[in-house]
Amino acid sequence: MISSSARRGRPRDARSDAAIADAVAALLAESGYAAMSIGAVATRAGVGKDTIYRRWSGKAELVYETVFTTADTADLPDTGTLEGDLTAVVQSLVEEFSEPAAAAALPGLLADFAAVPELRAAIRSRFLAPAKERLVAVFDRAARRGETDSGVPADLALDTLAGAVFFHLGIMGEQPDPDLAARIAAMIVKGIEVR
Amino acid sequence: MISSSARRGRPRDARSDAAIADAVAALLAESGYAAMSIGAVATRAGVGKDTIYRRWSGKAELVYETVFTTADTADLPDTGTLEGDLTAVVQSLVEEFSEPAAAAALPGLLADFAAVPELRAAIRSRFLAPAKERLVAVFDRAARRGETDSGVPADLALDTLAGAVFFHLGIMGEQPDPDLAARIAAMIVKGIEVR
Repeated sequence: MISSSARRGRPRDARSDAAIADAVAALLAESGYAAMSIGAVATRAGVGKDTIYRRWSGKAELVYETVFTTADTADLPDTGTLEGDLTAVVQSLVEEFSEPAAAAALPGLLADFAAVPELRAAIRSRFLAPAKERLVAVFDRAARRGETDSGVPADLALDTLAGAVFFHLGIMGEQPDPDLAARIAAMIVKGIEVR
Repeated sequence: MISSSARRGRPRDARSDAAIADAVAALLAESGYAAMSIGAVATRAGVGKDTIYRRWSGKAELVYETVFTTADTADLPDTGTLEGDLTAVVQSLVEEFSEPAAAAALPGLLADFAAVPELRAAIRSRFLAPAKERLVAVFDRAARRGETDSGVPADLALDTLAGAVFFHLGIMGEQPDPDLAARIAAMIVKGIEVR
């Protein structure tokens, strides 16, 4: 709950931002993405719906921006080997996708993204472009070490890593084994290493 | 449009089944999964809603059963190599996921499956169990040829293959390159081959 002094006229009020993010996470975990409404988020956060709509175009964008942020900001791993780096990349995806609010949101959110070209363009440029950049840097280091050829298909590797984690956890609802990231990374690394 | 002699009292009328499947495919392609209602399917197919509800528990099950059938029934490939077999498996996923009705349905359908434990159990037992069986047979043949160790993680390989195709086509909305299946299969095959 934020204080009554929250300045609703200012779009970047940190306290209302935090209250909105908390409300989104709580409502996702309690009742899921489909049942969550902007009105319920506003009520729970103690802000007006207009405060939310000034910042976000709708539910999909609100959920995406408040829930899926860790992968973009995490440090780029540099473990010294391609397998170590990719394990770290996959581990960050596993952690992001297993967090309760994220797990609750992801299937419905991706369905909304897939259905709306503008949202799809947003996920590509704001979520996947940074992820791809990180992965390209990992592959560049591996190529410099001689572990891979240059020209590894980073797009396809990214879709494969993200798809594997998403399908395993999000669709199949599996609990992540402690070694899930290492197993997925090992399968892909061997596929792109120079022999 | 089916003829007026369609026997609505009989749940397995082949003509109404075909009309319902055609209506589902047309409505998915026209307006998408979220906007499709059982009522609209019934009207378009020229049957009563009760005819649909006698056979299917709701929209998710109806769409799943009428749209996603080819992968279950396609012949198991036996090309003589693991890479050839897996390319054929992935190609059948690519074709299934690219078909217009399937592409339109998949994200929303998977969101419904993920949200409802009973539906998730259904997709596991009726869709993924046969797919896994086919994949286990492929891996068994590869192990007998000495291409892989026995004990390849078929579950994880299946989630990775299906996730890669789904993420690339369904979420990213990429058009499938002619060599997409071969590229994904090659990446995975090298990951699980004996060196």
